[in-house]
Amino acid sequence: MGNSFGRLFRITTWGESHGGGVGVVVDGCPSQIEINEDDIQKELDRRRPGQNKLVTPRDEADNIQILSGIFEGKTLGTPISLMVYNKDANPKAYDNLKDTFRPSHADFTYQKKYGIRNWQGGGRASARETIGRVAAGAIAKTILSKDYNIECIAYVKQVHHIIAEIDRDSISLEDVEKSLVRCPHKESSDLMIEQVEKARDEGDSLGGVIECVVRNVPVGLGEPVFDKLKADLAKAMMSLPATMGVEFGSGFDGTLLMGSEHNDEFYMDGDRVRTKTNHSGGMQGGISNGEDIYFRVAFKPTATIFKKQSSVTSAQKETELQAKGRHDPCVIPRAVPIVEAMANLVILDHLLINKRNQQ
Amino acid sequence: MGNSFGRLFRITTWGESHGGGVGVVVDGCPSQIEINEDDIQKELDRRRPGQNKLVTPRDEADNIQILSGIFEGKTLGTPISLMVYNKDANPKAYDNLKDTFRPSHADFTYQKKYGIRNWQGGGRASARETIGRVAAGAIAKTILSKDYNIECIAYVKQVHHIIAEIDRDSISLEDVEKSLVRCPHKESSDLMIEQVEKARDEGDSLGGVIECVVRNVPVGLGEPVFDKLKADLAKAMMSLPATMGVEFGSGFDGTLLMGSEHNDEFYMDGDRVRTKTNHSGGMQGGISNGEDIYFRVAFKPTATIFKKQSSVTSAQKETELQAKGRHDPCVIPRAVPIVEAMANLVILDHLLINKRNQQ
Amino acid sequence: MGNSFGRLFRITTWGESHGGGVGVVVDGCPSQIEINEDDIQKELDRRRPGQNKLVTPRDEADNIQILSGIFEGKTLGTPISLMVYNKDANPKAYDNLKDTFRPSHADFTYQKKYGIRNWQGGGRASARETIGRVAAGAIAKTILSKDYNIECIAYVKQVHHIIAEIDRDSISLEDVEKSLVRCPHKESSDLMIEQVEKARDEGDSLGGVIECVVRNVPVGLGEPVFDKLKADLAKAMMSLPATMGVEFGSGFDGTLLMGSEHNDEFYMDGDRVRTKTNHSGGMQGGISNGEDIYFRVAFKPTATIFKKQSSVTSAQKETELQAKGRHDPCVIPRAVPIVEAMANLVILDHLLINKRNQQ
Amino acid sequence: MGNSFGRLFRITTWGESHGGGVGVVVDGCPSQIEINEDDIQKELDRRRPGQNKLVTPRDEADNIQILSGIFEGKTLGTPISLMVYNKDANPKAYDNLKDTFRPSHADFTYQKKYGIRNWQGGGRASARETIGRVAAGAIAKTILSKDYNIECIAYVKQVHHIIAEIDRDSISLEDVEKSLVRCPHKESSDLMIEQVEKARDEGDSLGGVIECVVRNVPVGLGEPVFDKLKADLAKAMMSLPATMGVEFGSGFDGTLLMGSEHNDEFYMDGDRVRTKTNHSGGMQGGISNGEDIYFRVAFKPTATIFKKQSSVTSAQKETELQAKGRHDPCVIPRAVPIVEAMANLVILDHLLINKRNQQ
Repeated sequence: MGNSFGRLFRITTWGESHGGGVGVVVDGCPSQIEINEDDIQKELDRRRPGQNKLVTPRDEADNIQILSGIFEGKTLGTPISLMVYNKDANPKAYDNLKDTFRPSHADFTYQKKYGIRNWQGGGRASARETIGRVAAGAIAKTILSKDYNIECIAYVKQVHHIIAEIDRDSISLEDVEKSLVRCPHKESSDLMIEQVEKARDEGDSLGGVIECVVRNVPVGLGEPVFDKLKADLAKAMMSLPATMGVEFGSGFDGTLLMGSEHNDEFYMDGDRVRTKTNHSGGMQGGISNGEDIYFRVAFKPTATIFKKQSSVTSAQKETELQAKGRHDPCVIPRAVPIVEAMANLVILDHLLINKRNQQ
Repeated sequence: MGNSFGRLFRITTWGESHGGGVGVVVDGCPSQIEINEDDIQKELDRRRPGQNKLVTPRDEADNIQILSGIFEGKTLGTPISLMVYNKDANPKAYDNLKDTFRPSHADFTYQKKYGIRNWQGGGRASARETIGRVAAGAIAKTILSKDYNIECIAYVKQVHHIIAEIDRDSISLEDVEKSLVRCPHKESSDLMIEQVEKARDEGDSLGGVIECVVRNVPVGLGEPVFDKLKADLAKAMMSLPATMGVEFGSGFDGTLLMGSEHNDEFYMDGDRVRTKTNHSGGMQGGISNGEDIYFRVAFKPTATIFKKQSSVTSAQKETELQAKGRHDPCVIPRAVPIVEAMANLVILDHLLINKRNQQ
Repeated sequence: MGNSFGRLFRITTWGESHGGGVGVVVDGCPSQIEINEDDIQKELDRRRPGQNKLVTPRDEADNIQILSGIFEGKTLGTPISLMVYNKDANPKAYDNLKDTFRPSHADFTYQKKYGIRNWQGGGRASARETIGRVAAGAIAKTILSKDYNIECIAYVKQVHHIIAEIDRDSISLEDVEKSLVRCPHKESSDLMIEQVEKARDEGDSLGGVIECVVRNVPVGLGEPVFDKLKADLAKAMMSLPATMGVEFGSGFDGTLLMGSEHNDEFYMDGDRVRTKTNHSGGMQGGISNGEDIYFRVAFKPTATIFKKQSSVTSAQKETELQAKGRHDPCVIPRAVPIVEAMANLVILDHLLINKRNQQ
Repeated sequence: MGNSFGRLFRITTWGESHGGGVGVVVDGCPSQIEINEDDIQKELDRRRPGQNKLVTPRDEADNIQILSGIFEGKTLGTPISLMVYNKDANPKAYDNLKDTFRPSHADFTYQKKYGIRNWQGGGRASARETIGRVAAGAIAKTILSKDYNIECIAYVKQVHHIIAEIDRDSISLEDVEKSLVRCPHKESSDLMIEQVEKARDEGDSLGGVIECVVRNVPVGLGEPVFDKLKADLAKAMMSLPATMGVEFGSGFDGTLLMGSEHNDEFYMDGDRVRTKTNHSGGMQGGISNGEDIYFRVAFKPTATIFKKQSSVTSAQKETELQAKGRHDPCVIPRAVPIVEAMANLVILDHLLINKRNQQ
């Protein structure tokens, strides 16, 4: 329990950061879908550390292997098993973590919950776990794009105090990928890069906000009352490491408006019912209304820093801890394809669920 | 699909706002728990409209009926079926809604999804649906309180522009219930009441933020990786009507801190491992760490207002709509016990799930 | 957990034999289906005790109430809540069962599992629990019949030593309902009635076998590998009280054939692929192949008898027990509509699941 | 959907007979359990083809790989990923099956359901799929044995017309493994071997019955009403390839007894409540009562035979088919560890579920 997500398009991820590998089993993928291994690899490359000078230089070439479910380039309708082997360059690098809990990591809670943990890295709480999500999300993305013309784009909206003004309606994947920090607003992107470099040099870290927009979602996705589309998207986002909050449409700022300002009035756009504004973020009553779905996800600053911190040992003695090596001072840019993956998984799952009610 | 929540303590709600009634079936409640019908009724009374002068005067005496699962005052371990009959005073009051979609309500999305809707009120999207949640939550609350000493308290943190400074650590249920708007900070409460009355007189509505704190949660609740405690709480909150966002611990503001500021350093408090700060909101790696869990939920301003709005009909013609009668200009105070109910349901479900791993 | 069945067409039953009532919540029913209350009532009447001179004279008029999910005669796509109130004529009739476990009933196992039980009758293990199944099954039957032309017919194949030769291909519901024991073979039916009367007069009871055939099931229902159609049907049947076994197609006797005798060879019937024989019972690889699905379910003799039996008390003392009153010496005829209900629920659930893979 | 089994101890299998490999992800395994890779390999070796002269000589050394979830010999509480690579010696051997449906195989139903299939062997419907089940079952067996002293033993009860008289109470694993056909009754075993060799020489195949007994199951396992222990065991067994029926305790023969003969009377055995007989097969009301659980599973004769059979092509033309090579004329002996694996998985899952209700 806990390692599966989705109902009809259901993924089960497995793997620790050190040990054999990480992977995912995708159950419920429709058959006869053309899947290109390169499409999956491309998404994995987007989330990989060491993509550029900003982030952790640890070079992990995460080569995806397709173990089942695809035959002569097409899905069989059977489970698709995907995996990436771990390459443990230097297991000793983590020796000092064997007995000490890193602040704001999951070391302590895992140890208490399970009475055991793989202390060679983050174990199951490592960001490597998201490899399986991204690989499965790539399959969902393929189906959504080819069969439904649905497009999901995420980008960095904020790093630390720098907030980018971004035109949600016109942004493209290319705009996003041009920026080292995946912020499509050039000036903000430059400032963010500056901040990240500064934090890196100080051995400190930064948090931020990712915004995600999903276009061309048909009306009617989302199951009342508990499996509302916004509820499942919220769960998907809050299941990611380091996320602290999620808001849809007008979000927390929407609380500052009066009902008469916030309500999205209807009008006819040709033969299509549309809303003049989109404070609702593309969902009403938890069900998609055909407008763009959009939401923002808050990520805390990376827990791994290189400053001395107070901690305790597994023997419950107070101690101090100072991480060594080089790490990623700001994971948000790498989290962009992960947010997209989770959004794609949720949308596709709801599309399949909604078929139930169609003739 | 969509009307059940939880895994081992699992609720299924049913019912539209008009028609026979609303209710809930609770499956998986441990046996031999003493359940007092009054405890359930008390929580229902807290969520009921017409409790005071501020809110909708529609008097709904929601009398709970226990139909199964309890024998001689104790749970049997079998499903507990609870229901409340609807009292449809005036079905004609909704006649004008038969063919017109209310802006920012679920009328349009339900109609498109299902090809049919009960237009006599909000149907399944009505806040009446939450009666089942609150009744089930009252049972969860009883178990958490008696068997685990866990306490969950929610309160209004913000109404429109008024934000209350509240000491999360010391607040009690009594403090909350003293205020008409369930804001335990006297000055803020008075200002909020003023705002609500003003909005009511203008036929407009207000949104706001509820904060919720859960105390004495043991270390180890939450299932990595998808069923993190924060993920399930997020889903629970975003499954509520009118919610626009949820944030845990430092939340969106936490993105403004550096890692060295945000990390919660460990220390020993007697023989207990604790953190000096609690930016993490009581969870690390999605698992409870023994500190208070706290989060905030944003509610949009109530969609029902008495100002003229543009809309379209089910025949896809543009029209104008003006609601009549009297309604609740600010639902946040009534949502407080609903937020608590959902939090209690999530915590209890995870407590039961976590027993799996215990000897 | 344990009181729900199905995935996309999902039912949750509740209720003890004594207490408020019994009922079911149906989640996932497609919208806009015309549901006639009489159709549900008719199926309930078929399972009711006291239908004729053979069975228990306890007259339970189980009047169904529809509490939600249906509006102006059509399904809304929201949960359908159905219930029947209990009428507890004589709770004292069970006083002697408070402390003594009836042999081959669930008294002992419930008491040990839950530490408590409703001893006023069978509680949750009573056959009254199946009311919810039959009511939900009536809805499934309506959909299968109207939208898919699928027909499910069960009948009594065996009572004690009397085995009826029945032509599975031609049998109709009318043929079945003509017989007091729901055995459509006249001579066998007469012999069975004789046996049941004899057992009744002796205070003893009889078991038997129900056979069920489902016609016009499309090719492709059943999800490999665990949710095979035969696997879900088997679970459905073995979830019924008093069932001891289930077999599909050739069943246990099929083990006596050689592969060359048992294999169902293919041939073309116009443009339809068919099999010359149907030892497979309409499923291959756990997936329907378009031939008639058929299976048999074994029911043990009713546990309630009026002869003196050895037992123990809840205080773990040995004792003797002799039931009083009048009961049903052979429940098989009443179980016929219950078997049909479960089969209809499984088939419909799989039909909806299978839509996932269709364009 | 369809490729996962269990709720708290949940397995997801993947893989086709040809292609990358086959495997399983086990989610929900308690932490700190010592797992010996050899214990898993031993069970796989029991199910492997080519173990002895009777069965298919295709030598598949199914070497298990543990990819995650185990650290320094103990379970982490995280998903355990296990896999075996396929070794496709001769893919051309199946060329003639590309366009022709083998009678009583799943070729036709898969092709119709999915519009595509991996025709190089049985694909997902191959018995190779059970490798994942057996590997996961070996972990369950370890836990049941070490922590609960529960023992599950299956054996061949019948091959074709030869039925072995076996003393269910005294049989041991060693007794079973001594026999080439896993029938612990020497004379019957010899006769069965003779029959199998005869069928093999004729290019024909045989079916039979496996009986399984589970000892030391505590009272109270099984969730009323749908997730009865017998219901979940039935689903587990009917999810296996080639199974045609399952019966518990007295089974179909129990229908021939009167209630007074069939009821299991209680008595005190020291301070333990026991039953004098065990017609119920160790469960009452679907809940274990502490007596031995036992059941029988019917397997049809293997569908693959070497005699000429009528069939049709995927282009819907009638044709004849004659398989080549060498195959297993009687799979029952190899199915013995698979039946055990499924039983162990069900029992462990229910043990973990039942913890919910314990203090």
